[in-house]
Amino acid sequence: MAIQGRDEKHEGPIRLGMVGGGNDAFIGGVHRIASRIDDKYRLVAGALSSTPQKAQASGAALGLAPDRIYDDFKQMAIREARLKDGIEAVAIVTPNHVHYAAAREFLKRGIHVICDKPLTSNVADAVKMVKAAEASDALFILTHNYTGYPMTRQAREMVQSGLLGKIRVVQVEYAQDWLAEHQDVKQAEWRTDPSRSGAGGSTGDIGTHAFNLAAFVSGLELESLSADLQAFVDGRPVDDNAHVMLRYKGGARGMLWCSQVAPGNENNLRLRIYGEKGGLEWAQEDPNYLWYTPFGEPKRLITRNGAGAGEAAGRISRVPAGHPEGYLEGFANIYSDAAEAIIAKRNGAACPEGVIYPTVDDGLLGVRFVDACVRSSSRDSKWVGLT
Amino acid sequence: MAIQGRDEKHEGPIRLGMVGGGNDAFIGGVHRIASRIDDKYRLVAGALSSTPQKAQASGAALGLAPDRIYDDFKQMAIREARLKDGIEAVAIVTPNHVHYAAAREFLKRGIHVICDKPLTSNVADAVKMVKAAEASDALFILTHNYTGYPMTRQAREMVQSGLLGKIRVVQVEYAQDWLAEHQDVKQAEWRTDPSRSGAGGSTGDIGTHAFNLAAFVSGLELESLSADLQAFVDGRPVDDNAHVMLRYKGGARGMLWCSQVAPGNENNLRLRIYGEKGGLEWAQEDPNYLWYTPFGEPKRLITRNGAGAGEAAGRISRVPAGHPEGYLEGFANIYSDAAEAIIAKRNGAACPEGVIYPTVDDGLLGVRFVDACVRSSSRDSKWVGLT
Amino acid sequence: MAIQGRDEKHEGPIRLGMVGGGNDAFIGGVHRIASRIDDKYRLVAGALSSTPQKAQASGAALGLAPDRIYDDFKQMAIREARLKDGIEAVAIVTPNHVHYAAAREFLKRGIHVICDKPLTSNVADAVKMVKAAEASDALFILTHNYTGYPMTRQAREMVQSGLLGKIRVVQVEYAQDWLAEHQDVKQAEWRTDPSRSGAGGSTGDIGTHAFNLAAFVSGLELESLSADLQAFVDGRPVDDNAHVMLRYKGGARGMLWCSQVAPGNENNLRLRIYGEKGGLEWAQEDPNYLWYTPFGEPKRLITRNGAGAGEAAGRISRVPAGHPEGYLEGFANIYSDAAEAIIAKRNGAACPEGVIYPTVDDGLLGVRFVDACVRSSSRDSKWVGLT
Amino acid sequence: MAIQGRDEKHEGPIRLGMVGGGNDAFIGGVHRIASRIDDKYRLVAGALSSTPQKAQASGAALGLAPDRIYDDFKQMAIREARLKDGIEAVAIVTPNHVHYAAAREFLKRGIHVICDKPLTSNVADAVKMVKAAEASDALFILTHNYTGYPMTRQAREMVQSGLLGKIRVVQVEYAQDWLAEHQDVKQAEWRTDPSRSGAGGSTGDIGTHAFNLAAFVSGLELESLSADLQAFVDGRPVDDNAHVMLRYKGGARGMLWCSQVAPGNENNLRLRIYGEKGGLEWAQEDPNYLWYTPFGEPKRLITRNGAGAGEAAGRISRVPAGHPEGYLEGFANIYSDAAEAIIAKRNGAACPEGVIYPTVDDGLLGVRFVDACVRSSSRDSKWVGLT
Repeated sequence: MAIQGRDEKHEGPIRLGMVGGGNDAFIGGVHRIASRIDDKYRLVAGALSSTPQKAQASGAALGLAPDRIYDDFKQMAIREARLKDGIEAVAIVTPNHVHYAAAREFLKRGIHVICDKPLTSNVADAVKMVKAAEASDALFILTHNYTGYPMTRQAREMVQSGLLGKIRVVQVEYAQDWLAEHQDVKQAEWRTDPSRSGAGGSTGDIGTHAFNLAAFVSGLELESLSADLQAFVDGRPVDDNAHVMLRYKGGARGMLWCSQVAPGNENNLRLRIYGEKGGLEWAQEDPNYLWYTPFGEPKRLITRNGAGAGEAAGRISRVPAGHPEGYLEGFANIYSDAAEAIIAKRNGAACPEGVIYPTVDDGLLGVRFVDACVRSSSRDSKWVGLT
Repeated sequence: MAIQGRDEKHEGPIRLGMVGGGNDAFIGGVHRIASRIDDKYRLVAGALSSTPQKAQASGAALGLAPDRIYDDFKQMAIREARLKDGIEAVAIVTPNHVHYAAAREFLKRGIHVICDKPLTSNVADAVKMVKAAEASDALFILTHNYTGYPMTRQAREMVQSGLLGKIRVVQVEYAQDWLAEHQDVKQAEWRTDPSRSGAGGSTGDIGTHAFNLAAFVSGLELESLSADLQAFVDGRPVDDNAHVMLRYKGGARGMLWCSQVAPGNENNLRLRIYGEKGGLEWAQEDPNYLWYTPFGEPKRLITRNGAGAGEAAGRISRVPAGHPEGYLEGFANIYSDAAEAIIAKRNGAACPEGVIYPTVDDGLLGVRFVDACVRSSSRDSKWVGLT
Repeated sequence: MAIQGRDEKHEGPIRLGMVGGGNDAFIGGVHRIASRIDDKYRLVAGALSSTPQKAQASGAALGLAPDRIYDDFKQMAIREARLKDGIEAVAIVTPNHVHYAAAREFLKRGIHVICDKPLTSNVADAVKMVKAAEASDALFILTHNYTGYPMTRQAREMVQSGLLGKIRVVQVEYAQDWLAEHQDVKQAEWRTDPSRSGAGGSTGDIGTHAFNLAAFVSGLELESLSADLQAFVDGRPVDDNAHVMLRYKGGARGMLWCSQVAPGNENNLRLRIYGEKGGLEWAQEDPNYLWYTPFGEPKRLITRNGAGAGEAAGRISRVPAGHPEGYLEGFANIYSDAAEAIIAKRNGAACPEGVIYPTVDDGLLGVRFVDACVRSSSRDSKWVGLT
Repeated sequence: MAIQGRDEKHEGPIRLGMVGGGNDAFIGGVHRIASRIDDKYRLVAGALSSTPQKAQASGAALGLAPDRIYDDFKQMAIREARLKDGIEAVAIVTPNHVHYAAAREFLKRGIHVICDKPLTSNVADAVKMVKAAEASDALFILTHNYTGYPMTRQAREMVQSGLLGKIRVVQVEYAQDWLAEHQDVKQAEWRTDPSRSGAGGSTGDIGTHAFNLAAFVSGLELESLSADLQAFVDGRPVDDNAHVMLRYKGGARGMLWCSQVAPGNENNLRLRIYGEKGGLEWAQEDPNYLWYTPFGEPKRLITRNGAGAGEAAGRISRVPAGHPEGYLEGFANIYSDAAEAIIAKRNGAACPEGVIYPTVDDGLLGVRFVDACVRSSSRDSKWVGLT
């Protein structure tokens, strides 16, 4: 019952920069907390806003040294790459359409990139991002943070072990309600502007998470999908609700529902997977629990770090069972796994066993998923592949 | 807190017959209990099996008078119609393909029919059933029993009152696991034989319930659907899993999932409805609860007969809140509402306000739903209407 | 998955009478439904109210023959005992202080008694009741109906099997809120009048259920208790909240809380039992579930009639897992077990294995429990035994 | 929906030292994470173990400068007090019997103390601790971390606002199972050794948390208690299960159950409070939810940062509703509130409104609670006060 503190094997924190994430941003603050929890990063530089004044104010508020506060990410990449103690990694937390332009500058200078999802706002950029990542010696980490929850790792380990038998059905959904009415706040604004978020609305913002999580846990690869997208709120140029039928390679079938207009749903990402021998059910709002339902036996509730939880979950748990960990810890697990990979690289060592993080390829799949949803929906729900 | 016993306004029980429901049947026993709970029926005759020996043994076990035990439903219809104290109503609980042939005999003799769902095993029979019902003076009640739960009535009343605003999204699912492996029992056998159950497997057996319940609560009419049906168990000639996208008239969209191969799901019928102003969520396995989620306010849990429950639910509740009622009481509510209608008819009175039961038209819609699912799925999930 | 209809082994229904249970009563209606569900009784006589006019009206409403409607229970006992087809059993559902006087008349004439709880309103009457029952050839059944739920039987079977090891801790509670404010309704009135309900308020009305259920499941015998009783509502002459510490023979300890002033609690009876090797948890409002928590293993959720449920629960289940049964079915199980015992007696046969019902001795224990609570509380929570 | 990052108002982190919390300790790691989450502290010194070798190794692993790693807390207090950039605050996370001796050294040198609970292992030490804190200009913060959860603050605010009316009943429990069998691990060892943990076992380790939380939320002051303590595991010198009845000033009554031998309970702290007008229910394992049950209205589920949550909860939430926060964030809230108080003191400013942390007086009450439990239990559960 000793705490599994990842702060105990300290090798000097990773020097981190950030692009985006100024004062009134949401996800930047999450990335910063995630980077701190296990004491593996130190935020030392930032181009926190495209508005210079805001960039300066935000950097100062965070205690950055004045000469490490930049008005522009390119300038930051150039200068930091030259500094002896320049940043080793950068977190990119801008609106989607900026991801590629920003990431490129750091990748080509060998600075590791930790990028928010979706990877880019369109497929063309996503393909370029993959190439840029492949051409670089630096690592590329995509923060599909829900794969950082101990119990989604537990679920994945159980599927991989064969405990469920061959997978037949995948039901995944991600429902919210915050866009049920027209919203004027900044978060809503860029997320519903196709030029910044991409052609998908709810599909891009949350559908990609659902799609990625289903693939992560099930290990399945999509063959084709049939989608029906809607924009229920008047004047909204992107979808705020999507129904998607899924066909996976090997014969499994699935359904994905994402919605931002479903009152009563705060951040309701839920995954259910059924195989020949059993099922699993996990819900993001109660993330410390995983239902395992072997066919013909009583249902079992596995708890994070509790009896029945395995190595994959235990490795990234900090406190004993019954002491809930949440969203920030799950996000931190992506950061800390990335840190292990970065430190291994720094030391010329192999990446430690068990380290998992979403990659640029996962990001490309996500952007292709959005594109396929939009294409299928515009063609009367025709089955289309992820091309 | 006085019990709302429906046994208190007694007018002489309705004389009931039964077709099907012999020894090893499932649903026949349910119908019998449902008919007894509020003391409004007396089972006095039966053609309980197509096997004469079983028909006799089953009738004797139930305490029927020997001369009211029949080997054949037609014979029963003929004789009972002539008896002075012959049956006033008949429950038809045979496999689906027999429903029409049996019901016809009673309808044309003015005997009310209480028929299990789905209405018939194919559209042609369903259309004939509608005609037979229309031509008869007798009532036709279809036991879509889930509309008999107080909290589905409560949900319907709330939608009708406008509390949710215009409906946007309907998510309905009905998952079971008992057919996850090949089953040799009688229940499984006829339900997976197209010649007896119809072209739909899970769609007919449980999908029709889900489809009906969604319509009952939402008040929406289907425009078209797009379906992807599967038979996961080797050699099974009908679907055991179905994914269906729904487009309702007026713009609402929905999703229906039914499955009989989802381990851990016993009888998991669940309905969620989202409108512009709020949402509702109900699950059959915990039927005494209804979540009401007005947008921008805390979630509320309404309980059967508890604070916040309205007239529609209160009318059919028997015991105070906190004393759970279940499946049999919900089924009994259909029977008792039917009894109120039958007694009104017997007395030449108007059917009392508040009485609700599924009709032959609901049954036709259900059979058309199955047909549409099969057609759409065979045409690569093309959108089709209920024709 | 065939329904386990108890109506299939029919031997001629038991002729039943009822004392109390007129128009505006609560529990009488429950007893009548409970007697009907499995078709093992036929209500044929009644002394339904101490007010003659109400007795007549109530009997007529229930369809009793005019000459079987009595104004007085003694008159009913005398006449029915002489009739050739007189009642074989009587349900006594009056306020508590009448139980003994009524039961005595039937017991001494060999008519089986099904009596509501608590047994009597004071210990002296309870002791006389035990003697009357012992002196009679008739059976005495006390409707501690919560012992009729399949999952409390399941829990008991698991404890008896040794699965939990030696029991250490029993936590039982029964919370309601309907008396949180002063109530004028009849149900509240007699239940808070010591001359009719007894010296205990919440302790008698619901505490006895909690105490009985804990003993039923755990198999433990009380050694002593320490109680702190309160009447929170001004002017209420009996307790509406009670805290009780329990010491069982053999060393187990427990806690009982009953309250009728806890807003948000409808009928929240909940039992938790912990032994050296595992725990169990059951809640009356969700009665189809039983949590089983073996030490060092994942929690398991056992469902009525589902995987993991044993013989004791299966024997009294009617519908498959996932089809919830509730309060009325649990109550009916007491009636149907009683019917099996009565029919065996009628046939001169031994009572069938597995038949369980609460007895007059359980009733005496319950009344002594209330008395002990009152005594302990009045002596500053001194530990006292059930004498 | 912008993240409420407390890292945005940065004033230079507080220099923190730690006493205890070496390699295999549990709570030290928790304190360190809690101090990091909002970026308000920097750990710069430590006397992490009473074993010099372990102290050195632990300090090095945490990246402390070699000259800030101490073998002895007194030596650390003396030297750090002299350093220009010496620690401003110290976290004391040793076994209980060391708390006072350690805290004294820092308090008398004006270094703020953040001390784990219970305050001390006996009343005499606790009284001395209060005096030492009063004599010092430094702040004393006790980490009753469960008061740092947003929803316990929400509950407290609701009680204070009068929403529940006068409080009548408090039910609090804290159940675990990790000591159900004899344990050899260090955590179990000192916690069950009276010379180090104090005369209470479960009462001291977890009962104090339950007692404190009930007082924090209800605002009630204890008048007296009646306790029954047990040690179920053979040879255990302190209680591992306790039943306690509570009488609060003003007439409210309560019950406290704490246990470390209840299989299936991981860290099950649960609080229910009932007043004249409504109730509240909160459970630590699902900390983002608070049930509010106004009498006569539907139950409401309030979520952290969601609709219906107020200022007290919003102030200490980091991420939007639906993104669960957990144990570490709750703990961090105590640290960050302490930081606000410390920084205000550093700046000669008043402590900001809304800042809440448990004090040395809460600690004294907790130690007296344990003492009262032991006294009462040894005197056959006599009612005793907290003297």
